[in-house]
Amino acid sequence: MASSAFRSFTTPSAWRGMSALSRTHPTRRYATTTTVATGRADNSVGFGASPKSPAEYAAAWPSAAVAAVYEKHGAPEDMLRVVDLPLASLSSLGEDQVAVKMLAAPINPSDINQVQGTYAVKPPLPAVGGNEGVGMVVAVGPKAQSRLRPGQWVIPRSSGQGTWRSHWIAKESQFLVIPNDLALSQAATISVNPCTAWRMLHDFVPLQAGDTVIQNGANSAVGLCVIQLARALKLNTVNVVRDREDISALEGELVARGATHVVTDKFLGSFKMAEFWKQHSASLCPPRLGFNMVGGPNATNVIRQLGNRGVLVTYGGMSREPVVAPTGPFIFNDLQLRGFWMTRWNDEHAPEERERMLQDIAVHIRSGTLSTSCQGRPLAEFAGALTASRTALQAATFKQVLTMV
Amino acid sequence: MASSAFRSFTTPSAWRGMSALSRTHPTRRYATTTTVATGRADNSVGFGASPKSPAEYAAAWPSAAVAAVYEKHGAPEDMLRVVDLPLASLSSLGEDQVAVKMLAAPINPSDINQVQGTYAVKPPLPAVGGNEGVGMVVAVGPKAQSRLRPGQWVIPRSSGQGTWRSHWIAKESQFLVIPNDLALSQAATISVNPCTAWRMLHDFVPLQAGDTVIQNGANSAVGLCVIQLARALKLNTVNVVRDREDISALEGELVARGATHVVTDKFLGSFKMAEFWKQHSASLCPPRLGFNMVGGPNATNVIRQLGNRGVLVTYGGMSREPVVAPTGPFIFNDLQLRGFWMTRWNDEHAPEERERMLQDIAVHIRSGTLSTSCQGRPLAEFAGALTASRTALQAATFKQVLTMV
Repeated sequence: MASSAFRSFTTPSAWRGMSALSRTHPTRRYATTTTVATGRADNSVGFGASPKSPAEYAAAWPSAAVAAVYEKHGAPEDMLRVVDLPLASLSSLGEDQVAVKMLAAPINPSDINQVQGTYAVKPPLPAVGGNEGVGMVVAVGPKAQSRLRPGQWVIPRSSGQGTWRSHWIAKESQFLVIPNDLALSQAATISVNPCTAWRMLHDFVPLQAGDTVIQNGANSAVGLCVIQLARALKLNTVNVVRDREDISALEGELVARGATHVVTDKFLGSFKMAEFWKQHSASLCPPRLGFNMVGGPNATNVIRQLGNRGVLVTYGGMSREPVVAPTGPFIFNDLQLRGFWMTRWNDEHAPEERERMLQDIAVHIRSGTLSTSCQGRPLAEFAGALTASRTALQAATFKQVLTMV
Repeated sequence: MASSAFRSFTTPSAWRGMSALSRTHPTRRYATTTTVATGRADNSVGFGASPKSPAEYAAAWPSAAVAAVYEKHGAPEDMLRVVDLPLASLSSLGEDQVAVKMLAAPINPSDINQVQGTYAVKPPLPAVGGNEGVGMVVAVGPKAQSRLRPGQWVIPRSSGQGTWRSHWIAKESQFLVIPNDLALSQAATISVNPCTAWRMLHDFVPLQAGDTVIQNGANSAVGLCVIQLARALKLNTVNVVRDREDISALEGELVARGATHVVTDKFLGSFKMAEFWKQHSASLCPPRLGFNMVGGPNATNVIRQLGNRGVLVTYGGMSREPVVAPTGPFIFNDLQLRGFWMTRWNDEHAPEERERMLQDIAVHIRSGTLSTSCQGRPLAEFAGALTASRTALQAATFKQVLTMV
């Protein structure tokens, strides 16, 4: 089992390592075309290459996987290296093991935090980076009741397993099935941001068509999913974004995706917000649900907009400032401050329930209701993808997805 | 109907008013003995006088009630006056009306805020002060399906009706029955503080014997009820109080009532708190429930003590500072910040459910498990009671209860 074999390495010298991230891997056989997915409902956009058949992947099964790994916590640019990891042959699969050809895996902000050592999930070191991604089942171990079949697309069941790798042998229980008729970019990014938005819209307040949801960080990856899924649920969204020079362009983009209203953080904190509610009182109820990924005064200002029995769900803390709420709304308006973490939800719910949610979300992806804007780059160009993913403005619009097709 | 007739007064001149709070009412016929209820489990303590029979109260039914009223919002000392309010005769009771001889009513902090105009419930002015209190049914209007019978003890069903009055005629639906075998001091104060503690211990986290609850303001009226009811539920309590010179005396008093641990706010905010948990780890689980009536850094420090899935319930904001919580615990520990307001609970639950809770609490009062320390004063000595109720230290130990027996 490659993954546990890798885990058992105690010294980096056990890796047939490559020292520079920028190195082009000599044996890479995956597509190098980079395609930028822009605009909304851009469901058809892939990464310029289609996955091969499981038989083709099986025939070309290598003796080593390519992976982006880190030995210590620290700055991702310094810590991550693209290396070869020994890979078992398909004929030696254990009873409960499956061989997976990884197809694509994104670089999410929490992946960065994980390498930095500041994230709540800390895989034992050395570790393969990445928590999200999609692969194709190539072969299944000789176990009678196998759930998985070659050709199926799978995602990791739990986080911290390391998705930034070209090939992966692990226990079949480690994988969940997702539909394999999606664009690679969407399949690779289905399990974190869309699921977070989905659960937050379903699990905290029973909402009805016409209800209002307010969120900050509205142009974040989760924020964009909230906008699109809320539109599908016929909910109104009030979307808070940071003030900027090209604010009307951003507003246009969010409205095109389905945002009902876009306001800046500056506007949110001003007396004009009262006028805003008055002006839209005929079409806009006070929000009973708010999403916070910022914290600080921005979150306090979101709390101020919540109606009676309002619930604010914190799923991020970009400003690194705490959430501050006056005591009155807790007592007299039954304000609730809650939190959400997709990883915990995944750990606490049956795989079947999660697969059901993924199927439901896939319906929205197929219909074009829900899309994520991604930029694909071959795993061998990891350094560039990493840099791009850390450029705040870029990251907010284009998620970097490593391709290994 | 006295209460609505009073409400219809538009000018204070319609009252046969008394100008000075200190005036002794010439026609008062209630006991003047003041008894201080001290110590714990002091269930037997009343106020030196027992209620008369309903027949005796009926025979002496006056043409005016004595009441502490206010015409405008402002400083209670300046706004409240003890006056005569016209009172209908027992023979003229409406079909759905009952005549109640008020027996005792406390001065709670929220009553003070109501007069100041800073409370969420604002009765129309002029208004009779007071929200809590106990009375005896003296006569029932000529309605067949009357729920109430002479001799029963009742409390107001909703807040803002004005309990600081000697006699009261109102709709029977305005009253709830409570057991009439309790000490007057306990019956008069059963519906706010004990019920708040009861609901907060039952409605937010499913607790089991041995679980831990943490609270600030532990020597407040609600805090003392929490300590006693938690002990009855076999829960451990960590009780935070403000540091003071006589801290060991206070600690002794709280421990005598059933507090498991008492810590000062200063200690709570120090590195010693980690040692505290280590030291008691064998007997003390991390708290899953916390109660906050302070806000500010104190509340933040309480949040820091909460275990996984901890819930902090805010029911007061004594420091006038907001609740500040870092984003991490929301996301990774599933922290919940909630609020509780007894008035809302009362409005949203059936009278039967509330009467059931009052019966359950009465069991604890009868057995001595739960007691409130009160100081009784005749309604005519309202000014003194008001002053005493506003002395913070005093109020924290002895609730002022107006007697009208």
